[in-house]
Amino acid sequence: MADVPARTEMRVTTGPIRGSKKIHVGPLKVAMREIHLEPSSGEPPVRVYDTSGPYTDPDARIDIMAGLPALRRDWIMARGDVEEYDAREIKPEDNGLKGPDRSAGVQPFPNLVKRPLRARAGANVSQMHYARRGIITPEMEYVAERENLGRARLASYVRDGESFGASIPDYVTPEFVRDEVARGRAIIPSNINHPESEPMAIGRNFLVKINANIGNSAVASDVASEVDKLVWSIRWGADTVMDLSTGRNIHDTREWILRNSPVPIGTVPIYQALEKVGGIAEDLTWEIFRDTLIEQAEQGVDYFTIHAGVRLAYIPMAARRVTGIVSRGGSIMAKWCLAHHRESFLYDHFDEITEIMKAYDIAYSLGDGLRPGSIADANDEAQFSELYTLGELTHRAWKQDVQVMIEGPGHVPMHKIKENMEKQLQVCGEAPFYTLGPLTTDIAPGYDHITSGIGAAQIGWYGTAMLCYVTPKEHLGLPDRDDVKVGVVTYKLAAHAADLAKGHPAAQVRDDALSRARFEFRWRDQFNLSLDPETAEQYHDQTLPAEGAKSAHFCSMCGPKFCSMKITQEVRDFAAKKNQPADGFVEAGLTGAETAAASKAAALKGMEEMSRLFKEKGSELYMGAGGRDHD
Amino acid sequence: MADVPARTEMRVTTGPIRGSKKIHVGPLKVAMREIHLEPSSGEPPVRVYDTSGPYTDPDARIDIMAGLPALRRDWIMARGDVEEYDAREIKPEDNGLKGPDRSAGVQPFPNLVKRPLRARAGANVSQMHYARRGIITPEMEYVAERENLGRARLASYVRDGESFGASIPDYVTPEFVRDEVARGRAIIPSNINHPESEPMAIGRNFLVKINANIGNSAVASDVASEVDKLVWSIRWGADTVMDLSTGRNIHDTREWILRNSPVPIGTVPIYQALEKVGGIAEDLTWEIFRDTLIEQAEQGVDYFTIHAGVRLAYIPMAARRVTGIVSRGGSIMAKWCLAHHRESFLYDHFDEITEIMKAYDIAYSLGDGLRPGSIADANDEAQFSELYTLGELTHRAWKQDVQVMIEGPGHVPMHKIKENMEKQLQVCGEAPFYTLGPLTTDIAPGYDHITSGIGAAQIGWYGTAMLCYVTPKEHLGLPDRDDVKVGVVTYKLAAHAADLAKGHPAAQVRDDALSRARFEFRWRDQFNLSLDPETAEQYHDQTLPAEGAKSAHFCSMCGPKFCSMKITQEVRDFAAKKNQPADGFVEAGLTGAETAAASKAAALKGMEEMSRLFKEKGSELYMGAGGRDHD
Repeated sequence: MADVPARTEMRVTTGPIRGSKKIHVGPLKVAMREIHLEPSSGEPPVRVYDTSGPYTDPDARIDIMAGLPALRRDWIMARGDVEEYDAREIKPEDNGLKGPDRSAGVQPFPNLVKRPLRARAGANVSQMHYARRGIITPEMEYVAERENLGRARLASYVRDGESFGASIPDYVTPEFVRDEVARGRAIIPSNINHPESEPMAIGRNFLVKINANIGNSAVASDVASEVDKLVWSIRWGADTVMDLSTGRNIHDTREWILRNSPVPIGTVPIYQALEKVGGIAEDLTWEIFRDTLIEQAEQGVDYFTIHAGVRLAYIPMAARRVTGIVSRGGSIMAKWCLAHHRESFLYDHFDEITEIMKAYDIAYSLGDGLRPGSIADANDEAQFSELYTLGELTHRAWKQDVQVMIEGPGHVPMHKIKENMEKQLQVCGEAPFYTLGPLTTDIAPGYDHITSGIGAAQIGWYGTAMLCYVTPKEHLGLPDRDDVKVGVVTYKLAAHAADLAKGHPAAQVRDDALSRARFEFRWRDQFNLSLDPETAEQYHDQTLPAEGAKSAHFCSMCGPKFCSMKITQEVRDFAAKKNQPADGFVEAGLTGAETAAASKAAALKGMEEMSRLFKEKGSELYMGAGGRDHD
Repeated sequence: MADVPARTEMRVTTGPIRGSKKIHVGPLKVAMREIHLEPSSGEPPVRVYDTSGPYTDPDARIDIMAGLPALRRDWIMARGDVEEYDAREIKPEDNGLKGPDRSAGVQPFPNLVKRPLRARAGANVSQMHYARRGIITPEMEYVAERENLGRARLASYVRDGESFGASIPDYVTPEFVRDEVARGRAIIPSNINHPESEPMAIGRNFLVKINANIGNSAVASDVASEVDKLVWSIRWGADTVMDLSTGRNIHDTREWILRNSPVPIGTVPIYQALEKVGGIAEDLTWEIFRDTLIEQAEQGVDYFTIHAGVRLAYIPMAARRVTGIVSRGGSIMAKWCLAHHRESFLYDHFDEITEIMKAYDIAYSLGDGLRPGSIADANDEAQFSELYTLGELTHRAWKQDVQVMIEGPGHVPMHKIKENMEKQLQVCGEAPFYTLGPLTTDIAPGYDHITSGIGAAQIGWYGTAMLCYVTPKEHLGLPDRDDVKVGVVTYKLAAHAADLAKGHPAAQVRDDALSRARFEFRWRDQFNLSLDPETAEQYHDQTLPAEGAKSAHFCSMCGPKFCSMKITQEVRDFAAKKNQPADGFVEAGLTGAETAAASKAAALKGMEEMSRLFKEKGSELYMGAGGRDHD
C-alpha cells in the first residue's frame, strides 16, 4: 500500500465489546453479540442485536483500504435481474473541485468499482417489489433471524405493554418480514451497489432503530474522522448512518464510508447538487440533481432524503413562525421555489426519481423540510401541510414498489407528540416514521440529547420505527467522537425504553439479566450487560477503585454495613415457608376508607404468619439496607 | 474566626449566574432572576424562578460560619403561637461518636441556637392548619408572588396543553395558595426552626419542582463537600435538598447545611436512628426514633421521609421480586418487622409522630419503602399495597392538619407510569406526589439520569409535583460536583418539559425567547437563556472559539454559506405582501386521495401568489440553508 498516503491509513476502533462474543447464527450466519455472565450466575449468555459489523469480530481481517466483504453480492446476482455497466465518470465538481488536480482533496478509494449494478431494462430490484410478488429474499430471511434474537426460547415470557395498534409478533418469520415490506409497513434499505451491508428492517413491528449522522462541514472535519465516526457509531449501536457531508471531497468521502459500512448509508443528495452549482440554490436544475442521484446510486447509498414535500404553496405558511424553516434541505428548496416562483422540481419530477430508486433499490426518506425548529412552531399548518403531501408521495412511490419512510420533527412539546404519530400513520399508510427527537423543550442547549431523548422514547413508543440521534452539541457545534457515543447510547436507551413499553417480547430479557446481576452484586455482569460497559465501570471505580470491590457485596452508595439487597433473601426464606402470599387487595381499587380496613386485615393476617415463622426459624439474619435509589 | 479550623472554611460558589441579575419583587422582596438580552433584541429581560438564594446576589454578604439571614423569623414570631425552650442536649451518638471527644469529627456550627422554637401547648403551627382556618400567611404570599413570575404580563398568551385534571390558574393569588394547602393538594415545607428558607410550594398546580440528594456515606465524603453540594445544587435549580448522610457527624453536618440553606431540607430520620444503635435494625426502638425526630425537628429539618407504609403483611409480597426491597429505609423496617414479627413501630406510632410534626410544621414525605428496583418489579402487589396504606396515613395526618407528600417509584417502564400517578391521586386524595425518576429501563447504568429523566418528564406531565433527581452515578457510585450539576440540569429540563406539556401559562416564555435568540443568532442570549450557560458556550467555542463567532450570523453546523434562518425573512417579506396565508387544509383530516387533490389546489393558489410577487419584488436574496436539525 506504498501508494497510499499515510494520512489515509485510518485508525478505526476494532476488537470485541468487553464481555461480549461475536456469534453468527443460522445458515445465513447472522451476526449477533453474546454477553457472557459469571459462572456463579448459572445463567446462559444474553444475546443482543449487533450493528457493529466485522469490526468487533476478532476473527475478521479489517483492511480499510480493501473495504468490507460483499456479503450480499451473490444474493443479488442470483436473482438474475441486474446488469453491470460502465459507471458514470467522476467529475472534479463531484468533489467540489474546480479542476482535475486532487492534491488538495482526499485520494480515491483503492480498487474502485468501475462497473456498478443496476436493474436490467424493465426490471425492478426493490425488496418491496420482490415482497409483493411473494418472493422471500435472503435479505428478508436475514432480518427475521436478526430480529428474533432467540425469541423462540422466550415462550415462557408473559407479554404486556401498550403498542398503540402495532402488530409485533411473538416470533418473526421470513414470511412476516416479506408481508411487512410488501404492505410498506417496513423497509429494508439495500442498494444493490452496497453489498457490504448486513440486512436490517425499519418498521414499527420490529425493534426500534436509531440513526447517527456524520459528515464534514464547510468549517471542520476530514475523511479519516468521518470513517472513524462511522465505525465508532455502529460500535455503540447505530442501525443506519447518514453522511451529511458538505463542501469538498463529498464524493470520495462517501466512497470510503460506503465501502467500509456494514449498515445502510443515507444521504441528502440536494447538498451535493448545491455544491455543484457553487451554493447558489437558484442555479439548481433537475438535470444536475438527477445526475447527482445517479452518481450516489452507483456508489451504493441505501436511502435518499428527498424534500419533495416542500411545495410552493406551503412556503408562506412558515412566515408566522418563530424559527421559520430550519431544515437545510427544506430551505434550499424554499429558496429555489421563491426565486423561480415555480413548483419544486423534486415534486414535479417525483415519478422520474422513483424510476431511479427502483433500478438500484434505494429507499425514500421523504424529508420534512418544514418541520418545526422550536416549541412555538410545533404541529402548525406548514408542518402538517407538508406531511399530507408526503402521504400523497408515499402512495405514488408505492405504485412503483419503491420503499419509503417518512421523516418527522423536530421540536415538539410532549402533549403534541402523539398527534404527529397518529397523523403520520393515517396519512402515510403506516410507512415507517423516522423522527429527529423530537426535542421537548428549547431551553437546554448542551443537553439536547436529553431533551430529545425524552421525546424520542415517547414517539418510539407510539410507533416511530427509527429515531435519528441528537448529540449534546446540537444547536452549538460539530459532535466529536465522545459526543457521537453519548448521542448513540442515549438513543439506544430511548429506543429500548420504547421497545419495553410497546411490549416487545424479547426486550425485557436484558433488563432482567442486568437487574439480577445488580441484585447479586455481579458487578462485571452489570457493566457488561449495560449499553456502555466502559463508562459504567469507570463511574464505579471512581469511588471504589479496588479490584476487590468488583466482587464486594456492597456498593459505595451505602457502604458495607448497609445493603437492602440482602434483606430480600430473608423475605424469600419467609415466603417460601408460607403456603400462599398475603392477599393482594391492590387490584380492588379501594377508597381511602376501604383501604384502611383492608390494610388492617392484611396486617392481622401477617401477624399470624409471622408468629408461625417465629416458631419455625431462629437463624440470625444479616442486616441489610442498601437503597440504591437514595432512601 | 481564628478558632475555626481551616478545613471548615468552606469554599462555596457565589456570584450571579452569567447574564442574569438578582431581583427582589414585591413587599416581601421575593427573590427572582432576570436574564437580560442584547439591546438589539428589543426584548425585556426574561424572569425565571430562582432557587439559588443569596449566594447569587452580589449585594449579599456570604458567611458560611454565620449562616443565612432568618428571613421568616419575624413572620413566625408574629403569629404568637410558638415558644422558645431549652434544646435537647446533643449527645456523642448524635454524631456517631462513642464519647465526648469530637476531634475526629466535624466541629459544631458556631453560634448554635440553644433555644429552638416549638408550638405552644395545644397549638398547631403547620401551614395547613393556618390555611384551613382561612389564614393567608406571609409564606403563602411569598409563594404566590414567586410562582407568578410576572404571569400578569402574559394575558396575551394562548394556553394549550393537557394537564390530566390539574387546575393550574392563569394567575396565582395568595388565596389560591391557601386553598391548595388547605385541601392538601400542595405543601409549603417550612419548619419554624429553619427561618432561613425561602417559602416554596410543592403541588401539581404549581411549577414542577425538583429535589437533589446530598449526603456523605460510610465510604466517602466530608462536611465541606456536603455544604458545597448544597450551594452548588441550588445554584442550578434544586428546589429542595435531602441530606441522606449516614455514618459519623450526621448531626453537625446537618446543622451546617440547614443554617446555610435557603431551600427546604429533607431527611430520612431512620438513618440516624440506626446509627445510634450501631446499625443493628433489631435494636431500633420507638423511643430512640422519637428522640431522633425531636433532635432533627429542633435543627429545622423541613420534611421527614417516614416509611410507615412498610407493613408486616406486605413484606412477603417482595419475595417474588427480581430485586426485592431496594429502599434503604424500607429494608431497615422490613428487617425490624421480620426480627420482631411485629407491626412496624412507625405505623403503630404514626399519630404520635404526627403530633411532633405539627409542633414544628414538618411535612411528611411518606416513603415508598417497597418501590420497584427493576422493570420486572414495577406496579406489583407489594408496591401498590404500600401505596394504599400511604393513602390511609395521608388522611390520618390530615386529621391533625399536618402537611403530606407521597414518595413514588423507582423503576417503571413507560406504559406503567400513568397507572402510578392515577392510583396515587385516587388513594392519597391528591396529596403531592414526589417521585424518583422513574427509570424507564435497567440497562443503562452511567446514563440513568437520562433513563429516569424520560420517566420524570412523563410523570411530571401526568401530575407529579416534585421530581427527585438521579445522577449519572446512580447504581454505580457517589455523585461528585459535576454529577450533581448534570443531575440537576437534567431534572430541570424534565420538569420544564412537563410544565410545557401541562400548559403552564408562563412556561413557554423562556423557550420562545431562546428560540428567537437562536433564530437571530444572538449567541450570548442563547447561552444565557439556557439552563447551563457555561456548558452551552463551551460547546459552541469548541468549534468556533473566535470571539467574532459570537456575533456571526452562522454556526459551525452549516458554515457561513448555509443558513436556513436567513430564508425565513424572505418568506416573511413574501407573506407580508399577501392578503392572507395559503389555506390550511391540515385540520380537515383528509384521506390520501383527498390530500393529493387539496395539495394540488394549494399549489395552484401558490403559483398565482408567486407570480404576483414576481411583479412586486426584485431584490436579490441571500442564500441560506442552515438546518440546525441535521438536514
